Amino acid sequence: MKIRPATEADWPHLWAIIEPIMREGETFALPRDGNEATARAYFASAEKTNFVAEEDGIILGASYVRANQQGGGSHIANCGYMTSPAARGRGIARALCAHSIDYCRQQGFKGIQFNFVVSSNEPAVHLWQRLGFEIVGTLPKAFNHPQRGLVDSYVMFRSL
Amino acid sequence: MKIRPATEADWPHLWAIIEPIMREGETFALPRDGNEATARAYFASAEKTNFVAEEDGIILGASYVRANQQGGGSHIANCGYMTSPAARGRGIARALCAHSIDYCRQQGFKGIQFNFVVSSNEPAVHLWQRLGFEIVGTLPKAFNHPQRGLVDSYVMFRSL
Repeated sequence: MKIRPATEADWPHLWAIIEPIMREGETFALPRDGNEATARAYFASAEKTNFVAEEDGIILGASYVRANQQGGGSHIANCGYMTSPAARGRGIARALCAHSIDYCRQQGFKGIQFNFVVSSNEPAVHLWQRLGFEIVGTLPKAFNHPQRGLVDSYVMFRSL
Repeated sequence: MKIRPATEADWPHLWAIIEPIMREGETFALPRDGNEATARAYFASAEKTNFVAEEDGIILGASYVRANQQGGGSHIANCGYMTSPAARGRGIARALCAHSIDYCRQQGFKGIQFNFVVSSNEPAVHLWQRLGFEIVGTLPKAFNHPQRGLVDSYVMFRSL
Protein backbone atom coordinates (compact mmCIF):
# COMPACT_ATOMS: atom_id res chain seq x y z
CA MET A 1 0.00 0.00 0.00
CA LYS A 2 1.41 3.38 -0.96
CA ILE A 3 0.23 6.91 -0.32
CA ARG A 4 0.59 9.38 -3.18
CA PRO A 5 -0.84 12.76 -4.22
CA ALA A 6 -4.30 12.46 -5.78
CA THR A 7 -4.89 13.35 -9.42
CA GLU A 8 -8.02 14.50 -11.20
CA ALA A 9 -8.49 10.92 -12.46
CA ASP A 10 -8.84 9.71 -8.85
CA TRP A 11 -11.99 11.65 -8.06
CA PRO A 12 -14.51 9.06 -9.35
CA HIS A 13 -12.89 6.52 -7.00
CA LEU A 14 -13.01 8.96 -4.09
CA TRP A 15 -16.66 9.67 -4.86
CA ALA A 16 -17.37 5.91 -4.80
CA ILE A 17 -15.88 5.80 -1.29
CA ILE A 18 -17.47 8.95 0.11
CA GLU A 19 -20.97 8.46 -1.31
CA PRO A 20 -22.00 5.57 0.99
CA ILE A 21 -20.40 7.36 3.97
CA MET A 22 -22.47 10.46 3.16
CA ARG A 23 -25.68 8.40 2.72
CA GLU A 24 -25.04 6.67 6.06
CA GLY A 25 -24.75 10.08 7.75
CA GLU A 26 -23.01 8.81 10.87
CA THR A 27 -19.56 10.37 10.71
CA PHE A 28 -19.28 13.27 8.24
CA ALA A 29 -21.32 16.45 8.62
CA LEU A 30 -22.73 16.13 5.11
CA PRO A 31 -26.36 16.01 3.99
CA ARG A 32 -27.43 12.39 3.53
CA ASP A 33 -29.09 13.34 0.23
CA GLY A 34 -26.12 15.38 -0.98
CA ASN A 35 -24.74 14.97 -4.48
CA GLU A 36 -21.29 14.54 -5.98
CA ALA A 37 -20.61 18.30 -5.96
CA THR A 38 -21.47 18.46 -2.25
CA ALA A 39 -19.00 15.71 -1.47
CA ARG A 40 -16.31 17.20 -3.66
CA ALA A 41 -16.66 20.64 -2.06
CA TYR A 42 -16.30 18.98 1.34
CA PHE A 43 -13.32 16.74 0.62
CA ALA A 44 -11.59 17.95 -2.52
CA SER A 45 -12.20 21.69 -2.97
CA ALA A 46 -9.47 23.85 -4.48
CA GLU A 47 -7.82 24.87 -1.18
CA LYS A 48 -7.33 21.23 -0.14
CA THR A 49 -4.42 18.95 -1.04
CA ASN A 50 -5.56 15.34 -1.48
CA PHE A 51 -3.67 12.10 -1.10
CA VAL A 52 -4.80 8.56 -1.82
CA ALA A 53 -3.84 5.21 -0.32
CA GLU A 54 -3.47 2.75 -3.19
CA GLU A 55 -2.72 -0.95 -3.45
CA ASP A 56 -2.50 -2.90 -6.71
CA GLY A 57 -4.16 0.00 -8.51
CA ILE A 58 -7.14 0.06 -6.11
CA ILE A 59 -7.79 3.18 -4.02
CA LEU A 60 -8.45 2.15 -0.42
CA GLY A 61 -8.76 5.56 1.18
CA ALA A 62 -7.94 9.24 0.89
CA SER A 63 -7.00 12.30 2.91
CA TYR A 64 -7.06 16.05 2.59
CA VAL A 65 -4.85 18.71 4.11
CA ARG A 66 -5.52 22.44 4.19
CA ALA A 67 -4.79 25.45 6.38
CA ASN A 68 -7.61 25.54 8.95
CA GLN A 69 -7.72 29.34 9.07
CA GLN A 70 -6.22 32.20 7.10
CA GLY A 71 -3.90 34.96 8.28
CA GLY A 72 -2.85 34.63 11.91
CA GLY A 73 -4.37 31.14 12.04
CA SER A 74 -2.71 29.74 8.90
CA HIS A 75 0.03 27.82 10.76
CA ILE A 76 -2.52 25.22 11.92
CA ALA A 77 -3.62 22.56 9.43
CA ASN A 78 -6.94 20.78 9.14
CA CYS A 79 -7.10 17.25 7.75
CA GLY A 80 -9.80 14.74 6.86
CA TYR A 81 -9.77 11.03 6.05
CA MET A 82 -11.96 8.39 4.52
CA THR A 83 -11.52 4.66 4.10
CA SER A 84 -13.27 2.39 1.64
CA PRO A 85 -15.78 0.27 3.60
CA ALA A 86 -14.25 -2.79 1.94
CA ALA A 87 -10.83 -1.93 3.40
CA ARG A 88 -11.84 -1.17 7.00
CA GLY A 89 -9.72 -2.65 9.76
CA ARG A 90 -6.55 -2.68 7.69
CA GLY A 91 -4.92 0.43 9.12
CA ILE A 92 -5.66 2.68 6.14
CA ALA A 93 -6.84 5.63 8.24
CA ARG A 94 -3.86 5.22 10.56
CA ALA A 95 -1.44 5.24 7.60
CA LEU A 96 -3.13 8.25 6.01
CA CYS A 97 -3.08 10.20 9.28
CA ALA A 98 0.57 9.34 9.96
CA HIS A 99 1.35 10.49 6.41
CA SER A 100 -0.43 13.80 6.88
CA ILE A 101 1.35 14.43 10.19
CA ASP A 102 4.67 14.11 8.32
CA TYR A 103 3.41 16.13 5.37
CA CYS A 104 2.08 18.95 7.55
CA ARG A 105 5.35 19.14 9.46
CA GLN A 106 7.26 19.35 6.17
CA GLN A 107 4.95 22.13 5.01
CA GLY A 108 5.76 24.12 8.15
CA PHE A 109 2.45 23.72 9.97
CA LYS A 110 2.75 23.88 13.76
CA GLY A 111 -0.34 21.85 14.59
CA ILE A 112 -3.28 19.91 13.15
CA GLN A 113 -6.88 20.53 14.19
CA PHE A 114 -9.89 18.30 13.57
CA ASN A 115 -12.91 20.59 13.80
CA PHE A 116 -15.72 18.09 14.12
CA VAL A 117 -15.13 14.50 15.24
CA VAL A 118 -18.48 12.86 16.05
CA SER A 119 -18.16 11.41 19.57
CA SER A 120 -20.05 8.23 18.68
CA ASN A 121 -17.39 7.44 16.07
CA GLU A 122 -15.33 5.86 18.84
CA PRO A 123 -12.88 3.93 16.66
CA ALA A 124 -11.84 7.20 15.01
CA VAL A 125 -11.59 9.10 18.31
CA HIS A 126 -9.38 6.38 19.79
CA LEU A 127 -7.22 6.16 16.69
CA TRP A 128 -6.60 9.91 16.63
CA GLN A 129 -5.75 9.79 20.34
CA ARG A 130 -3.20 7.04 19.71
CA LEU A 131 -1.71 9.25 17.00
CA GLY A 132 -1.17 12.09 19.45
CA PHE A 133 -4.36 14.09 19.11
CA GLU A 134 -6.15 15.34 22.20
CA ILE A 135 -9.77 16.31 22.68
CA VAL A 136 -9.43 20.06 23.29
CA GLY A 137 -13.11 20.89 22.99
CA THR A 138 -16.53 19.27 23.31
CA LEU A 139 -19.42 20.68 21.28
CA PRO A 140 -22.54 19.67 23.18
CA LYS A 141 -25.13 17.76 21.14
CA ALA A 142 -23.67 19.24 17.97
CA PHE A 143 -24.31 16.19 15.76
CA ASN A 144 -27.65 14.61 14.94
CA HIS A 145 -26.88 10.91 14.50
CA PRO A 146 -29.47 9.02 12.41
CA GLN A 147 -29.78 6.25 15.03
CA ARG A 148 -28.53 7.75 18.29
CA GLY A 149 -29.98 11.23 18.00
CA LEU A 150 -28.05 14.23 19.31
CA VAL A 151 -24.50 13.37 20.32
CA ASP A 152 -21.49 15.52 21.20
CA SER A 153 -18.80 16.35 18.73
CA TYR A 154 -15.13 16.89 19.55
CA VAL A 155 -12.48 19.35 18.49
CA MET A 156 -9.17 17.48 18.44
CA PHE A 157 -5.69 18.96 18.21
CA ARG A 158 -2.11 17.82 17.88
CA SER A 159 0.93 20.08 18.03
CA LEU A 160 3.70 19.40 15.50
CA MET B 1 -29.86 52.31 16.35
CA LYS B 2 -31.66 49.58 14.44
CA ILE B 3 -30.58 46.21 13.16
CA ARG B 4 -31.83 45.18 9.73
CA PRO B 5 -30.97 42.66 6.99
CA ALA B 6 -28.04 43.81 4.86
CA THR B 7 -28.51 44.61 1.18
CA GLU B 8 -26.05 44.53 -1.69
CA ALA B 9 -25.72 48.31 -1.36
CA ASP B 10 -24.34 47.90 2.17
CA TRP B 11 -21.22 45.99 1.17
CA PRO B 12 -18.99 49.05 0.49
CA HIS B 13 -19.76 50.23 4.04
CA LEU B 14 -19.00 46.78 5.47
CA TRP B 15 -15.74 46.71 3.53
CA ALA B 16 -14.83 50.11 4.99
CA ILE B 17 -15.30 48.60 8.47
CA ILE B 18 -13.58 45.27 7.90
CA GLU B 19 -10.56 46.53 5.94
CA PRO B 20 -8.79 48.22 8.88
CA ILE B 21 -9.64 45.23 11.12
CA MET B 22 -8.06 42.91 8.53
CA ARG B 23 -4.96 45.16 8.17
CA GLU B 24 -4.56 45.25 11.96
CA GLY B 25 -4.60 41.43 12.03
CA GLU B 26 -5.36 41.15 15.75
CA THR B 27 -8.81 39.58 15.87
CA PHE B 28 -9.92 38.02 12.57
CA ALA B 29 -8.06 35.11 10.99
CA LEU B 30 -7.62 36.98 7.73
CA PRO B 31 -4.42 37.78 5.82
CA ARG B 32 -3.30 41.32 6.70
CA ASP B 33 -2.63 41.97 3.01
CA GLY B 34 -5.95 40.48 1.87
CA ASN B 35 -8.20 42.27 -0.60
CA GLU B 36 -11.90 43.08 -0.77
CA ALA B 37 -12.77 39.63 -2.18
CA THR B 38 -10.95 37.96 0.71
CA ALA B 39 -12.95 39.93 3.23
CA ARG B 40 -16.22 39.38 1.43
CA ALA B 41 -15.67 35.60 1.23
CA TYR B 42 -15.00 35.63 4.98
CA PHE B 43 -17.91 37.77 6.13
CA ALA B 44 -20.50 37.91 3.36
CA SER B 45 -20.26 34.77 1.19
CA ALA B 46 -23.43 33.30 -0.30
CA GLU B 47 -24.20 30.87 2.55
CA LYS B 48 -24.16 33.68 5.15
CA THR B 49 -27.05 35.94 6.13
CA ASN B 50 -25.86 39.44 6.99
CA PHE B 51 -27.36 42.10 9.22
CA VAL B 52 -26.25 45.67 9.81
CA ALA B 53 -26.58 47.98 12.79
CA GLU B 54 -27.54 51.40 11.47
CA GLU B 55 -28.10 54.79 13.03
CA ASP B 56 -29.07 57.93 11.12
CA GLY B 57 -28.15 56.18 7.87
CA ILE B 58 -24.65 55.30 9.12
CA ILE B 59 -23.64 51.63 9.41
CA LEU B 60 -21.98 51.08 12.78
CA GLY B 61 -21.46 47.33 12.61
CA ALA B 62 -22.55 44.09 11.01
CA SER B 63 -23.10 40.40 11.69
CA TYR B 64 -23.35 37.17 9.79
CA VAL B 65 -25.25 33.98 10.56
CA ARG B 66 -24.81 30.62 8.84
CA ALA B 67 -25.10 26.92 9.65
CA ASN B 68 -21.71 25.92 11.06
CA GLN B 69 -21.80 22.43 9.52
CA GLN B 70 -23.95 20.60 6.99
CA GLY B 71 -26.04 17.47 7.44
CA GLY B 72 -26.05 16.16 11.01
CA GLY B 73 -24.35 19.35 12.20
CA SER B 74 -26.69 21.85 10.54
CA HIS B 75 -28.71 22.62 13.70
CA ILE B 76 -25.78 24.63 15.13
CA ALA B 77 -25.22 28.16 13.84
CA ASN B 78 -22.00 30.09 13.46
CA CYS B 79 -22.01 33.88 13.72
CA GLY B 80 -19.50 36.69 13.31
CA TYR B 81 -19.51 40.38 14.21
CA MET B 82 -17.65 43.56 13.42
CA THR B 83 -17.96 47.05 14.78
CA SER B 84 -16.81 50.26 13.17
CA PRO B 85 -13.73 51.48 15.08
CA ALA B 86 -15.46 54.88 15.37
CA ALA B 87 -18.40 53.25 17.18
CA ARG B 88 -16.51 51.10 19.67
CA GLY B 89 -17.71 51.11 23.26
CA ARG B 90 -21.31 51.83 22.34
CA GLY B 91 -22.69 48.32 22.69
CA ILE B 92 -22.93 47.61 18.97
CA ALA B 93 -21.41 44.12 19.19
CA ARG B 94 -23.62 43.31 22.17
CA ALA B 95 -26.75 44.43 20.27
CA LEU B 96 -25.75 42.49 17.14
CA CYS B 97 -25.04 39.34 19.14
CA ALA B 98 -28.31 39.59 21.09
CA HIS B 99 -30.08 40.03 17.75
CA SER B 100 -28.46 36.96 16.24
CA ILE B 101 -29.32 34.85 19.30
CA ASP B 102 -32.98 35.73 18.74
CA TYR B 103 -32.70 35.25 14.98
CA CYS B 104 -31.00 31.85 15.28
CA ARG B 105 -33.63 30.66 17.74
CA GLN B 106 -36.37 31.77 15.32
CA GLN B 107 -34.63 29.90 12.52
CA GLY B 108 -34.69 26.71 14.59
CA PHE B 109 -31.00 26.51 15.43
CA LYS B 110 -30.27 24.71 18.71
CA GLY B 111 -26.94 26.38 19.48
CA ILE B 112 -24.40 28.92 18.27
CA GLN B 113 -20.70 28.15 17.93
CA PHE B 114 -17.84 30.61 17.55
CA ASN B 115 -15.03 28.64 15.96
CA PHE B 116 -12.09 30.94 16.56
CA VAL B 117 -12.11 33.67 19.21
CA VAL B 118 -8.58 34.99 19.70
CA SER B 119 -7.85 34.77 23.44
CA SER B 120 -6.07 38.14 23.53
CA ASN B 121 -9.29 39.81 22.35
CA GLU B 122 -10.42 39.92 25.95
CA PRO B 123 -13.23 42.43 25.57
CA ALA B 124 -14.87 40.13 23.02
CA VAL B 125 -14.35 36.98 25.12
CA HIS B 126 -15.91 38.67 28.16
CA LEU B 127 -18.80 40.06 26.15
CA TRP B 128 -19.65 36.66 24.67
CA GLN B 129 -19.47 35.14 28.16
CA ARG B 130 -21.91 37.74 29.47
CA LEU B 131 -24.22 36.81 26.59
CA GLY B 132 -24.25 33.15 27.64
CA PHE B 133 -21.39 31.70 25.62
CA GLU B 134 -18.92 29.36 27.28
CA ILE B 135 -15.37 28.51 26.29
CA VAL B 136 -15.77 24.84 25.30
CA GLY B 137 -12.36 24.44 23.71
CA THR B 138 -8.90 25.99 23.75
CA LEU B 139 -6.75 25.77 20.62
CA PRO B 140 -3.18 26.06 21.85
CA LYS B 141 -1.12 28.81 20.20
CA ALA B 142 -3.47 28.74 17.24
CA PHE B 143 -3.24 32.46 16.46
CA ASN B 144 -0.16 34.45 15.52
CA HIS B 145 -0.80 37.91 16.94
CA PRO B 146 1.25 40.67 15.24
CA GLN B 147 2.42 42.08 18.61
CA ARG B 148 2.00 39.27 21.12
CA GLY B 149 3.12 36.32 18.99
CA LEU B 150 1.43 32.95 19.35
CA VAL B 151 -1.66 33.07 21.56
CA ASP B 152 -4.46 30.58 22.20
CA SER B 153 -7.76 30.72 20.43
CA TYR B 154 -11.11 29.66 21.90
CA VAL B 155 -14.08 27.71 20.64
CA MET B 156 -17.16 29.22 22.29
CA PHE B 157 -20.66 27.76 22.40
CA ARG B 158 -24.13 28.70 23.58
CA SER B 159 -27.14 26.43 23.53
CA LEU B 160 -30.45 27.96 22.40
